[in-house]
Amino acid sequence: MDSLQPALRDDLPQSGPDGATMVLPGVTVAVAPGDGIGPEITDAVLQVLSAADPALAFETVCVGLQAYQAGESSGFGPSLLDAVARHGVLLKGPVTTPQGGGYKSVNVSLRKTFGLFANVRPCVAYHPHVATAHPGMDVVIVRENEEDTYAGIEHRQTAEVYQCLKLITRPGCERIVRHAFEYARANGRRKVTCMTKDNIMKLTDGLFHRVFREVAAGYPEIETEHMIIDIGAARMAVAPRQFDVVVTPNLYGDILSDIAAEVAGSIGLAPSANIGHASAMFEAVHGSAPDIAGRDIANPSGLLLSAVMMLEHLGRNEPAQRIRAAWRRTLEDGIHTADIHVEGRSRARVGTRAFARAVIERLGEPSTAATLAIASPPGKVESMRHGPTPASAPSQPVKALVGVDVFLHWDACERSPDVLGRRLEGLAGPSFRLALVSNRGVKVYPGGRPETLCTDHWRCRFLAAPEHTPAKRDIVDLLLRLDDAGFDAVKTENLYRFDGEPGYSQAQGE
Amino acid sequence: MDSLQPALRDDLPQSGPDGATMVLPGVTVAVAPGDGIGPEITDAVLQVLSAADPALAFETVCVGLQAYQAGESSGFGPSLLDAVARHGVLLKGPVTTPQGGGYKSVNVSLRKTFGLFANVRPCVAYHPHVATAHPGMDVVIVRENEEDTYAGIEHRQTAEVYQCLKLITRPGCERIVRHAFEYARANGRRKVTCMTKDNIMKLTDGLFHRVFREVAAGYPEIETEHMIIDIGAARMAVAPRQFDVVVTPNLYGDILSDIAAEVAGSIGLAPSANIGHASAMFEAVHGSAPDIAGRDIANPSGLLLSAVMMLEHLGRNEPAQRIRAAWRRTLEDGIHTADIHVEGRSRARVGTRAFARAVIERLGEPSTAATLAIASPPGKVESMRHGPTPASAPSQPVKALVGVDVFLHWDACERSPDVLGRRLEGLAGPSFRLALVSNRGVKVYPGGRPETLCTDHWRCRFLAAPEHTPAKRDIVDLLLRLDDAGFDAVKTENLYRFDGEPGYSQAQGE
Repeated sequence: MDSLQPALRDDLPQSGPDGATMVLPGVTVAVAPGDGIGPEITDAVLQVLSAADPALAFETVCVGLQAYQAGESSGFGPSLLDAVARHGVLLKGPVTTPQGGGYKSVNVSLRKTFGLFANVRPCVAYHPHVATAHPGMDVVIVRENEEDTYAGIEHRQTAEVYQCLKLITRPGCERIVRHAFEYARANGRRKVTCMTKDNIMKLTDGLFHRVFREVAAGYPEIETEHMIIDIGAARMAVAPRQFDVVVTPNLYGDILSDIAAEVAGSIGLAPSANIGHASAMFEAVHGSAPDIAGRDIANPSGLLLSAVMMLEHLGRNEPAQRIRAAWRRTLEDGIHTADIHVEGRSRARVGTRAFARAVIERLGEPSTAATLAIASPPGKVESMRHGPTPASAPSQPVKALVGVDVFLHWDACERSPDVLGRRLEGLAGPSFRLALVSNRGVKVYPGGRPETLCTDHWRCRFLAAPEHTPAKRDIVDLLLRLDDAGFDAVKTENLYRFDGEPGYSQAQGE
Repeated sequence: MDSLQPALRDDLPQSGPDGATMVLPGVTVAVAPGDGIGPEITDAVLQVLSAADPALAFETVCVGLQAYQAGESSGFGPSLLDAVARHGVLLKGPVTTPQGGGYKSVNVSLRKTFGLFANVRPCVAYHPHVATAHPGMDVVIVRENEEDTYAGIEHRQTAEVYQCLKLITRPGCERIVRHAFEYARANGRRKVTCMTKDNIMKLTDGLFHRVFREVAAGYPEIETEHMIIDIGAARMAVAPRQFDVVVTPNLYGDILSDIAAEVAGSIGLAPSANIGHASAMFEAVHGSAPDIAGRDIANPSGLLLSAVMMLEHLGRNEPAQRIRAAWRRTLEDGIHTADIHVEGRSRARVGTRAFARAVIERLGEPSTAATLAIASPPGKVESMRHGPTPASAPSQPVKALVGVDVFLHWDACERSPDVLGRRLEGLAGPSFRLALVSNRGVKVYPGGRPETLCTDHWRCRFLAAPEHTPAKRDIVDLLLRLDDAGFDAVKTENLYRFDGEPGYSQAQGE
C-alpha cells in the first residue's frame, strides 16, 4: 500500500485550517514507543496528536529492548516491517542499542530496509527559552542517508592495510539534492548550501557537487552556494545564521547535523525525519535516557516536533501548524520541563504529562513569537509524490577499458619499490605496460623518494600497451602471470574512459 | 643530511636558557616567503628570529606564484626540494594556488613528497586580546596527514557509480598516534582524545581506535578517551575547553582543526606544523591575502608562532620560549595590528614591521599572563628522533583466501536482483557459491526488498564452495565464466580470513 494515499477513515471527526470544520481524511500511522523514556514521551505526544488531529489513528508496534530481548537482533520484528509497509509512516520513540552481541542499530536497519535516503534535521534556536549563542538560528540539514563510507563495505587486504569503500552514485545524489530543493521550496526557504570536499575527492564529491548544480537549475528562485566541508563545518560552529538549508553526503551530514544541533542549543528538543519514497520515519534526536525513565520528568518536545514533521509529510498542515504554535506558546508562557527550566525565567516546572496538557490547552492560541520555527506554511515535499527516481540515463556514456589497477600484498626484498617495479615491468606485456606503482596513493615507482613510508600494500597501475585495445581476458592473463610469478594480487580496479575522459584519479607524483 | 643533527655553525654568538651564555649550535633553515602578504610577514618573522636566536641562518627558496609562473605546476622547483632535504626544516609563507590549469597545492605536494604524516594545529584562545567565546581554550589537533580518503584513489566504475578508497594502515596509525602521545608528553599535556567513527567503520576506523589503545598503554601518565567524531566535533564547537590533545584520521582532522581554529577565535594567529621523520614544514593557517599585500598591515603572528613551533622542533626551546613570551607581552601591552585592533581596548594600532619591532623590544620580558599558551617548557618530540616507524610485524597474521567480491556493471532486465542472482548462482561453481548480491551495501539477493534503490553497480559475494579451499586460479576461472556469460566485472576484492577472523564486513541484511 502506498503511504501517500492512506486508507480513508471517515468515521472520525474532522477539523479545518480556518477554524471551520474541514474534512481531513482519517489515516493510521505506526507508532513504536521504544524504551527508556520512550513510552512516556510517546504517550504524551499521542495525546497532543489526538487532540489536534482527531482523524489520526495509531497502530502501536514493538521496537527496542523488548524486541532485542525477544531475540530480534535488529531491534524489531516482522510486525513492525508489516505496519510500516502498510501505513508508510512510523513515529518512533528512542531506543537503546545493547552493546556487543551482534545487535544492530534499529535506525540503520530501518533506513536500509526501507530506503530512507534523506535524513532531515531542523536545528532551531529557541531563544530566550533555551540558552543559545545564536538567537534566530534556523537551519535544516538534509543529509544523504545511504551512501558514502556508510555503505559499510570494508576489506582487510594485507597484514597492515584496511580499506573502506566510499560510494557516491548519480541516482543517489539526484534524489537527495532534489529532496533538499523540494523541501526548500515547500517550506519557503531561500537558500540551499551544498557542502563537499571536491577539491580533494574530485570524482566522488565532484559528482555530488555537479549534480547539485544540475538540479539547482530547476529552482531558479532559490539561492545556492557550495562550501568545502571543513570550512562549512567551522562556519556552522560559529556563524550558523548564515545557513538555511544544507545538503551534503552522508558522513559530512552526520558530523554537520550534530554540530548544528549543539550550537542551536536545543538538541534535547530537536526532531528528525528519515524519508524514503514509500515510507518515512520520524523521531527525536535525543536518546532513551534510561536514568530518568518512568519518572514523568522527560521533555516530550523532540518527539512532538518530530510528530509535527510527520503531519506535514502527510500533508496535514493545519493540525501541524496548530501543534507547533501551541508548543511554542507553552514555551513562551514559561511552562518548562526540568531540562530547560531556569529559576527566575521559567514560570512553572512541569512533568511530561503536565507539559502535554499545557500544549493541548493552547491548541488554537497564536504564538506571540514574531516568527515561528517555520515562517511560511509548510507544504508537502513534491519529490515524495514521485516513485523512486528513475535511473538517470540521459546519455549512457561510452565506456572503454584502458587498463587495470592491481593491488598486491607484497612484503619482500625490504619492500624496495624499485625491485617490485622492475619485476612487474617484466610481467606487464604483451597487453599492458606498467605505468606506476603507488603506496597509499603516493607514487613510489618509477622515481619514488626514500622518505615515503611503504606499507605491504601496493597499487600497480597497468595501462594498455601501445596500439593495443585491452579486453577482460588480458586482465585475467595478467593476473595469471602475476600468480605464477608468486605475486599476491588482493584486489583489482579496472580503468575505464567514459566518453573519452579518464574514470580514475592520477597518483600523487604521476 | 639528517635535519635533526644539523651542521654546527659555531662562528655565531650564542645565548643560553638561564640568561647566561650557552652555546646553541648554529643551524640553517629553509625559508620560502610565498606570495601575497608572504614576503612582508616572512621578513618580519626573520627579524624576530634573528634577534632571539642569532645562531639561526636562513636559505631563502622560491615557492608559490613565482614558481607557478616559471612553469612549476607543483608551485616549487628542485631548489626547494634540495634545500628541504639538506636542512630538514622549511618555514613557509602563504601561497595562492592558481585556479584550474592543473596547478597542484604546494602543501599537498610537499606533504606527499616528504612524508609529512602529522599535521599539528594548536588552537588557542587569546582572551581578552582576541574575541572568543571560550577563554582558556588551548587545544592541539594532531591530524593524520597521508591516508584516509585523501590518498586520492578514485575510480568511476559504471555509468552511475563513483568510488573513492579509504585506506587506513597499521603503520600509519601507529606513527600518528605515537606522535600525539609524544607531543603530549613533551609539552606537559594531560589528555589525548581519539576521535573516529568506529561504530560504523569497524575495520578501518576500528584499526585506528585499536592502535590508539595499544599505544596509549605506553603513556600511563596521560589520560585517554575516545569519542565518535560527530559528537566530538559538536563538542569541539560548543565546549572546546574539555579537550587537550586530539588525534584523529585525516578527513575528521581536516574538519575538526577548522572548527577548533574558528571557535578559538584566532584563526588569523594560528600556527601549524607538518611533521615527517626526515623533514618538517611550518606555516601559518591563514592565506596569502593578496588584497592587503605590500601595505605593511598584515599580522605576522601566525607565521611567527609557526616559527616558534619550528624552534621547538629543532630543540631550541630557549629562544622559542623567549619569542612566545615577548609576543604575548606585545599583545598584552595593547600593541595590535589592524585585524585584532579594538578601539578602546588596544593601545596602539601598528603595521607589520612595527609589530615585529615591538616583539623584539620585549624579548626577555616576562608575559604577565598567568599561563602562556604552552604552560610547561616544550620539549622535543621523541618520535622525531627515530627513523621511519618499523613495519609492525609483531605477529604476521595467517591469511586464508575464502572468497571474492566481484563488482559488476549490470544494467539489464530492469535491474532485477532476482534475475541477476539466479544467473550468478549458475556461474559460481564448482569452486564458489553465491552468498549474496548487494547494491550500495544493501543486500538485494536473496531476499531483497522492492524499496531498495538499485544502481547499475552490483557487489556479488562468492564464498568458497563447501569442502573447497579456493586459490587465485579459481577467481580467475570465475572471472572468465562471468566474462563468457556477458557479465562486465569492473573490480574484485578478495575475501580473506586473518588468523581465522573474517577480514571483510557483512552486507546489511546478510
